[in-house]
Amino acid sequence: MKVGVVMGSKSDLEVVKPCLTALKKFGVQAEVRVISAHRTPDEAHEYAATAASRGIEVLVGVAGKAAHLAGVLAASTVLPVIALPVQTSFMGGLDSLLSMAQMPSGIPVATVGVNGGENAGLLAVQMLSLKYPDLQKKLAAFKEEMRCKINADDAELQKQL
Amino acid sequence: MKVGVVMGSKSDLEVVKPCLTALKKFGVQAEVRVISAHRTPDEAHEYAATAASRGIEVLVGVAGKAAHLAGVLAASTVLPVIALPVQTSFMGGLDSLLSMAQMPSGIPVATVGVNGGENAGLLAVQMLSLKYPDLQKKLAAFKEEMRCKINADDAELQKQL
Amino acid sequence: MKVGVVMGSKSDLEVVKPCLTALKKFGVQAEVRVISAHRTPDEAHEYAATAASRGIEVLVGVAGKAAHLAGVLAASTVLPVIALPVQTSFMGGLDSLLSMAQMPSGIPVATVGVNGGENAGLLAVQMLSLKYPDLQKKLAAFKEEMRCKINADDAELQKQL
Amino acid sequence: MKVGVVMGSKSDLEVVKPCLTALKKFGVQAEVRVISAHRTPDEAHEYAATAASRGIEVLVGVAGKAAHLAGVLAASTVLPVIALPVQTSFMGGLDSLLSMAQMPSGIPVATVGVNGGENAGLLAVQMLSLKYPDLQKKLAAFKEEMRCKINADDAELQKQL
Amino acid sequence: MKVGVVMGSKSDLEVVKPCLTALKKFGVQAEVRVISAHRTPDEAHEYAATAASRGIEVLVGVAGKAAHLAGVLAASTVLPVIALPVQTSFMGGLDSLLSMAQMPSGIPVATVGVNGGENAGLLAVQMLSLKYPDLQKKLAAFKEEMRCKINADDAELQKQL
Amino acid sequence: MKVGVVMGSKSDLEVVKPCLTALKKFGVQAEVRVISAHRTPDEAHEYAATAASRGIEVLVGVAGKAAHLAGVLAASTVLPVIALPVQTSFMGGLDSLLSMAQMPSGIPVATVGVNGGENAGLLAVQMLSLKYPDLQKKLAAFKEEMRCKINADDAELQKQL
Amino acid sequence: MKVGVVMGSKSDLEVVKPCLTALKKFGVQAEVRVISAHRTPDEAHEYAATAASRGIEVLVGVAGKAAHLAGVLAASTVLPVIALPVQTSFMGGLDSLLSMAQMPSGIPVATVGVNGGENAGLLAVQMLSLKYPDLQKKLAAFKEEMRCKINADDAELQKQL
Amino acid sequence: MKVGVVMGSKSDLEVVKPCLTALKKFGVQAEVRVISAHRTPDEAHEYAATAASRGIEVLVGVAGKAAHLAGVLAASTVLPVIALPVQTSFMGGLDSLLSMAQMPSGIPVATVGVNGGENAGLLAVQMLSLKYPDLQKKLAAFKEEMRCKINADDAELQKQL
Repeated sequence: MKVGVVMGSKSDLEVVKPCLTALKKFGVQAEVRVISAHRTPDEAHEYAATAASRGIEVLVGVAGKAAHLAGVLAASTVLPVIALPVQTSFMGGLDSLLSMAQMPSGIPVATVGVNGGENAGLLAVQMLSLKYPDLQKKLAAFKEEMRCKINADDAELQKQL
Repeated sequence: MKVGVVMGSKSDLEVVKPCLTALKKFGVQAEVRVISAHRTPDEAHEYAATAASRGIEVLVGVAGKAAHLAGVLAASTVLPVIALPVQTSFMGGLDSLLSMAQMPSGIPVATVGVNGGENAGLLAVQMLSLKYPDLQKKLAAFKEEMRCKINADDAELQKQL
Repeated sequence: MKVGVVMGSKSDLEVVKPCLTALKKFGVQAEVRVISAHRTPDEAHEYAATAASRGIEVLVGVAGKAAHLAGVLAASTVLPVIALPVQTSFMGGLDSLLSMAQMPSGIPVATVGVNGGENAGLLAVQMLSLKYPDLQKKLAAFKEEMRCKINADDAELQKQL
Repeated sequence: MKVGVVMGSKSDLEVVKPCLTALKKFGVQAEVRVISAHRTPDEAHEYAATAASRGIEVLVGVAGKAAHLAGVLAASTVLPVIALPVQTSFMGGLDSLLSMAQMPSGIPVATVGVNGGENAGLLAVQMLSLKYPDLQKKLAAFKEEMRCKINADDAELQKQL
Repeated sequence: MKVGVVMGSKSDLEVVKPCLTALKKFGVQAEVRVISAHRTPDEAHEYAATAASRGIEVLVGVAGKAAHLAGVLAASTVLPVIALPVQTSFMGGLDSLLSMAQMPSGIPVATVGVNGGENAGLLAVQMLSLKYPDLQKKLAAFKEEMRCKINADDAELQKQL
Repeated sequence: MKVGVVMGSKSDLEVVKPCLTALKKFGVQAEVRVISAHRTPDEAHEYAATAASRGIEVLVGVAGKAAHLAGVLAASTVLPVIALPVQTSFMGGLDSLLSMAQMPSGIPVATVGVNGGENAGLLAVQMLSLKYPDLQKKLAAFKEEMRCKINADDAELQKQL
Repeated sequence: MKVGVVMGSKSDLEVVKPCLTALKKFGVQAEVRVISAHRTPDEAHEYAATAASRGIEVLVGVAGKAAHLAGVLAASTVLPVIALPVQTSFMGGLDSLLSMAQMPSGIPVATVGVNGGENAGLLAVQMLSLKYPDLQKKLAAFKEEMRCKINADDAELQKQL
Repeated sequence: MKVGVVMGSKSDLEVVKPCLTALKKFGVQAEVRVISAHRTPDEAHEYAATAASRGIEVLVGVAGKAAHLAGVLAASTVLPVIALPVQTSFMGGLDSLLSMAQMPSGIPVATVGVNGGENAGLLAVQMLSLKYPDLQKKLAAFKEEMRCKINADDAELQKQL
């Protein structure tokens, strides 16, 4: 099982890292690429069109501003594409979010929140878990882990106050 | 393979219909429910928590305004949850979109565009296609069909002008 | 008289503190908890559903981004729930504000301004003052105190200029 | 127990009606007034300052655009004030919502959603229920009623599809 | 000729200073007060209602967030009121701007841009110039001065490049 | 005393009419012109530059979208310029409002609310009243009239309910 | 001289028509195509990549929502690309506008206003006029025509009032 | 071939520099001026009206807030005008963007993204390339250069991870 994470610019790496960490935590292999929808359109098309044949099962497109990358990938593949909008100095990333979320009918992308790198990774894992049931158990364990973390934070707060 | 489509109010049915049409086109069985995150929180929790055991593989949460439904479902399952924001009279649905897209780290939902019913259905099919390879062929055929439709529209326009 | 202040993440503590200070100033006891609508949904439900029986009379839900916490609490109790939206880097907290203020019909929450911790506390006191008339006197005194503070600021300014 | 509902213009009556219906349903007496923060500032001040002495326990301020009414009422009373923003043709009422929700520290109002008349009424009932325990039972019954309504909608949908 | 500059909080002084500088430059006397629409409503009403009788001819209301101050002043006087919205951390001051600009019919305020202190002062001077023709000459000279400043900047740039 | 009302397009006439009605009510003479900042820039410049010499004392600029008219007039006169933003289909007129309100330092305009024709007229009257004291009495009478109108609406509502 | 006008969906034709009318008025030949960035990505790439060789000198991309068409065209050609955002029910087309205007560095598009079909056509003519000086004369005549039209509207208004 | 770059304030120079760098890279001569639409309206008109006669072929207007400069230039010339909106502290520059992009019918400007200096320069080059075919080759080379840069970033990332 393999996820293809594509960022439009190497400056998006900080937003991508939590995504990679999440995938690694679940034992999902990630391919990370810098491919721009606008500066390397042929590479973007090629990457998406051949992803399935190279064993990629889910794509993540990471971009900011007029963030077309996820949509461009989705145009050239039938694999599910997760759209990860990057925060900008313009209204906190509203441009990135709308450029990704408001895709026209027929070509969906699965948009997560602005700078939501970890969620992009987790969503990829959830998608893969349909095929790889082991991941469902790991996801349930992760949910439990989060629960315990919040409960521990709560317990700590009680002491602190 | 089965998708659970949950709408927060029966008034959301018009937005849900294109989702059901899309699922049906791909031979994916859909369970449609009216369950409100706020008016029937127990049912919402119960529905999500038991969905997997009833054979549901993907959930779609449909809601408007402070649209918590998809997030509430995602809190109680490890299945992927698609969030379909409903248009409102407030900024065209910005409230619905942000209430869904901006989920906190750890609990992703896969947000599609405002009133993007067909895309919600197609995204569910793409997710299921990871496990059911036949769907990938159907998705490729659907893509080709869209291509032909646009090309036909183009041809018709050439005659018209 | 007791107020239950619930924050979705311990990182919200800075926003909560002015709320606690306000409650303390009026002699209202506060229970502070870290409970997440999404990471600990059972705890959130349990907390809200049993709050009244534990002597809690007003709840305050504090959260950011797709801020469902106040709504989730309100779904499981008939106590009044105050929603305190936390500022985010996305449009200054518009996501938090809309996710809280735009609740569907039937399940109200009482939304205060973004990062309006003190106001959340004061609103809780105002609600409690319906039952505990002593608080009304204290509120009137607090109002007078604010008036004097502004007048003192004005007097100081006159000297300064 | 009595709620004072104040609208800034008689054109706001349609938004107020669901509030009155909700209050009536719970047997809460409502006083409805047309008082403008800007056109009748003395009346607004007078109304708020004397409300408590006339037996009013909760105020609801209803206004649109630069909607100052709730804040103006709150400035002259220690009673809790609910702010009901009216939809406008400007961004669907964002002007009304922000003019109400973003109150400065020290003078809270309890903001409900745009055109959220029913919720304004219900929130008033919840506040009053702190003092009048019978209302808590009625609120619990109302919650159950909503639950049944959603479940009935769900059952009807199952037949329909 | 005298302008009454009222700020809702002493923290607004930095935004007020360029306004005072502009007034001083034109020899217009300014009275500066800290009066809050919400914390000192009586003072606000009193101040506006008696301003004309104390020789004030134009008022400037300076406030942020749910910025009611200018509107509250305008409600109690027939003098022209300039509204100066203060920048906030919420969408850069959109809350302040809308709370001021979107006044209901019948009670105008003259809104300048967010943090537009100098413009508030200049606008007051322009208003006063209707009565005091000498100010028109000074305004024309100021316009010429600005023209020269821009031309000087331009000349300097030509050298620099 | 005379006000120059300039609209950027004859389609703005509906928004201008309440402005003219207000001016007429106060016996203020109005000159109404269709002059476009972009399509007739020379006329706009000429109109503003010569307005004072023709006895105009206040200007009103009415425009929508990238609404530069008021700013363009203000650039060529020292008379006070009122900016009246026209509602558009884009976010309800946010484009018009921001293009007018956010003027750079040095060239103020007095912005009223979107489609606030009556307020533009009243603000012009308030400005003129600095010079023509009779208008102050009329403005006070108008304020009283508004007060009575609201009180009458209130009285009627009491009968109706 | 030839302009290639590409719309993402045949439903955009109404927005395109004023563009074609403008081009025709100036004797500029237009090729109109329905090509979707997402549904026919190969055709979009092919169209843009070969446009110059077919004598096209300027491209216009017309699309709504997550409007990637202009950017996708610009990625595959060095010809100037005009972006014409189509109004949507979401915030009046803010999604379309931001998806077009906020292009990343290196791949510019020339964005006109939402539904600004005529302006897209005129901008294409202005670009072409660099090479074809005759167009500059026609543009000057068109400017004069607009001027006369506004002046005629003004004259008519004077009679009417 | 020559581009006239006009900034409304010398403080915009940082945003202009990448534009100049881009023009220089393509051997396009740039004239840079500080001219304000509001503070030096005559100069702005004069500059635009005479630009063509001085050999200028494309104009770039750079401004922030109520950014009228590009529109004011476009009103006085038939040359294509590129609008470069400057980022502000108000919603990240939404005011600048809307004041430029939403131009009324008849007077187009070619808007690039907020702070999109490089893109403004490249767009000017693309426009000029219609007349000067050598620039098309340089633009193709620049596109290839960008492609290589992204590919190099990608290659470096592969090593790094």
